[in-house]
Amino acid sequence: MSPLMPSASYSLTIRCRIPQSPGAFARIATAIGLEGGILGAIDLVRVDDGNVVRDVTVATVDAEHGAAIVEAVRALPGIDVLSVSDRTFLLHRGGKIEVTPKVPIKSRDDLSMAYTPGVARICMAIHDDPAAAWNLTIKGNTVAVVTDGTAVLGLGDIGPEAAMPVMEGKAMLFKEFGAVDAWPICLDTKDPDEIVACVKALAPGFGGINLEDIAAPRCFEIERRLRDELDIPVFHDDQHGTAIVVLAALINALRLVDKRAEDVRVVMVGVGAAGIAVADMLFAHGVRDLIGCDRKGALYAGREGLDEVRRDFAERSNPRGFQGTIAEALAGADVAIGLSGPGTIPAEAVRTMADRPIVFALANPTPEVQPEEVREDVAVIATGRSDYPNQINNVLAFPGVFRGALDVRARTVNEEMKLAAAEAIASVIGEGELMADYIIPSVFNRRVTDAVAAAVADAAIATDVARRAHRRPSDDEQG
Amino acid sequence: MSPLMPSASYSLTIRCRIPQSPGAFARIATAIGLEGGILGAIDLVRVDDGNVVRDVTVATVDAEHGAAIVEAVRALPGIDVLSVSDRTFLLHRGGKIEVTPKVPIKSRDDLSMAYTPGVARICMAIHDDPAAAWNLTIKGNTVAVVTDGTAVLGLGDIGPEAAMPVMEGKAMLFKEFGAVDAWPICLDTKDPDEIVACVKALAPGFGGINLEDIAAPRCFEIERRLRDELDIPVFHDDQHGTAIVVLAALINALRLVDKRAEDVRVVMVGVGAAGIAVADMLFAHGVRDLIGCDRKGALYAGREGLDEVRRDFAERSNPRGFQGTIAEALAGADVAIGLSGPGTIPAEAVRTMADRPIVFALANPTPEVQPEEVREDVAVIATGRSDYPNQINNVLAFPGVFRGALDVRARTVNEEMKLAAAEAIASVIGEGELMADYIIPSVFNRRVTDAVAAAVADAAIATDVARRAHRRPSDDEQG
Repeated sequence: MSPLMPSASYSLTIRCRIPQSPGAFARIATAIGLEGGILGAIDLVRVDDGNVVRDVTVATVDAEHGAAIVEAVRALPGIDVLSVSDRTFLLHRGGKIEVTPKVPIKSRDDLSMAYTPGVARICMAIHDDPAAAWNLTIKGNTVAVVTDGTAVLGLGDIGPEAAMPVMEGKAMLFKEFGAVDAWPICLDTKDPDEIVACVKALAPGFGGINLEDIAAPRCFEIERRLRDELDIPVFHDDQHGTAIVVLAALINALRLVDKRAEDVRVVMVGVGAAGIAVADMLFAHGVRDLIGCDRKGALYAGREGLDEVRRDFAERSNPRGFQGTIAEALAGADVAIGLSGPGTIPAEAVRTMADRPIVFALANPTPEVQPEEVREDVAVIATGRSDYPNQINNVLAFPGVFRGALDVRARTVNEEMKLAAAEAIASVIGEGELMADYIIPSVFNRRVTDAVAAAVADAAIATDVARRAHRRPSDDEQG
Repeated sequence: MSPLMPSASYSLTIRCRIPQSPGAFARIATAIGLEGGILGAIDLVRVDDGNVVRDVTVATVDAEHGAAIVEAVRALPGIDVLSVSDRTFLLHRGGKIEVTPKVPIKSRDDLSMAYTPGVARICMAIHDDPAAAWNLTIKGNTVAVVTDGTAVLGLGDIGPEAAMPVMEGKAMLFKEFGAVDAWPICLDTKDPDEIVACVKALAPGFGGINLEDIAAPRCFEIERRLRDELDIPVFHDDQHGTAIVVLAALINALRLVDKRAEDVRVVMVGVGAAGIAVADMLFAHGVRDLIGCDRKGALYAGREGLDEVRRDFAERSNPRGFQGTIAEALAGADVAIGLSGPGTIPAEAVRTMADRPIVFALANPTPEVQPEEVREDVAVIATGRSDYPNQINNVLAFPGVFRGALDVRARTVNEEMKLAAAEAIASVIGEGELMADYIIPSVFNRRVTDAVAAAVADAAIATDVARRAHRRPSDDEQG
């Protein structure tokens, strides 16, 4: 459970030549174990001249740890290390997604239907009725994953090329979890006007826009303008995906401690794009008493030095006009939600919270407070990590949100659809299953996407933003 | 061989209920045959109550012809037509391409390598060395197929949505023929500044840009500016793909009639984007005497009313300063190349050409002159159609051009690479195989792409525009 646990994300494959003598491999296994590596797959590559060449896969903590393990193996007498490869780098070679034709082009007949001359009739059918593009092109199942590379994971402004691996990964998740075809668009501009113009221009081929890893406050303006100007869903996942999953977790956590959203006091540590979006969803769900805090403490109406977005937020939140530090704000609070950085929630302050407190410490990889420090003091703790229970992960939301929106050809993603998504995620855990270590389903729970998609589609229909009234197309629908 | 031949691109599947009596199906087959339809697959759907329900697929000429055939079947006593579906529309339902993950995400280990936290190391490796994006993302195998929908096939300015089926088809061809991953980008703007800004912005995730179906003269400026400002190949296929394949066909046609490029007189009918690009490639290949003609006749230096592009072209071409009609220009010419519209090359004028003339009548679907009218008068005739010999089809060029350019991570596609591509296509037909009906390989000849890719890659290396010196990466190349 330590943050320094070896993981597959940092695993090496060490190719070594080992004498064919009893105990030779055991010495390697021992050396790896002594260094703290975790032995994985062991493959035999070839046998030559009294030696065996093996590929030994080892999970390590980081680059330094990996180097130490390789050195330990190299130091063993009689063992030759032939090469070392990094599995995560190998997996990324050539990228992680590809474009696949749905029908083969193996004959002239195939060509004449999928391309010229047959395709011309399809083009003209869409020209005559642009809405037919939803049915006769990939638009109806396709999302652009758009970033400018300015706020990638916790890495900051690393640029569009360096953002690609994340956006490709996102596209994989869209397909694996939502059967949505997503394509990464990494923009070489940070100018909101240019980003808006570019996304508007390329929108015809897409049924939705997933904005990703765009820094605040630029992300607010970009999303607002695109939502206003496009007739397809525009969804900044860092804001709304996070907000949906946090609300889902909170719904179940409150159910567990038997408190009502209307009654609880919530302290939000971190008022960036995600924090504000989470707060807004909590308000929409019924929460009234929520205080946002940055490093200087609580945001309140009239606090000096706030930018426009936070000034606006301060006016909407903190109804009691509380002023003070994070620790002071936490005294008597029912819920603490961290969307900031390592260590910003003091463990002692958690112990001053109300009875049966709920703590979501979502900073990644190092939470706002280490779960081990407060486990005995809280009713529920959730993090952003997969190696603790209750992982708050956007993968629970975005595939289903877009699946549902695309299924009914929604014009937008509105508040009702997001609330429905949160409730759907929460509902996957039945009354009998709910417990402190299980308030949110696993990302590999395949029921989640279906539940979210159905709820989002229904909400879109109910709020009149759907272009069609059913998730499943009728057989004779052609245009 | 008539332009009104039934084809798969216009085929219907008629579902009908037929009595289980001898000769019942034969009456349907006869009715279809009498109407000029071509019977294809016949599937049995079910048997019920003395009747058989069958799906009968019929190739027809066009919508009117299809309707007449359905009526003829419907008119047969005892036969019920239950439904009629259009195979080309069915094939296009939901679009023609999808995004496929190259590695599965089925476990937490998969997720931790392809996405967070493992992906962060890949991002930082690219941040530290942006060139690593070629190896560690999809960039190195990916092309954007970009259009503004203003000159789609022969359909004109039908807009970005209606252009999608063509761009998806192009993406399929890229994958099937070149193993290149291509994604359609259909832009909702006709403003060259906006198109240039948008393509520049989205370029980081792509290894090349294929411009497609953008109207002249805008296409010239857009391509020129993007070529200047991007460090990846930018290739307007309507111009250069056509030019490469026309030159390939001409190389072989001249070989067949034993004439040299330097000596022949060429008349180009149609001086649009493709015509000018073809002329420029012919010049680069050694042709000296080429006259471009529009409806008013030959373009010559000083002719009134020419726009800038054609004024410039007139000055580079027509070295004898010929003035006159298309028919007059053709008198004594060795080669006529039509890239205009139906019937613009008079058959009588073809009969005034030099000995063993070569005619490429490339307008689609109706050529500049019907092959039947001049077959006896020419040494070689080629068209853009698949139902005559010698089809000039861009599919012969673009997959291999981009395959070769991507293989060596080329910074551009230059004249040498295009000439090499043309020569490679021509070379696929050996000396012993060359004949009047076989001057250009079939689009389904799998040797073409490999030959083109190798030639383009070599030319890129030789002209110092390649980022790496070999088509095949070495095993230990990681960044």
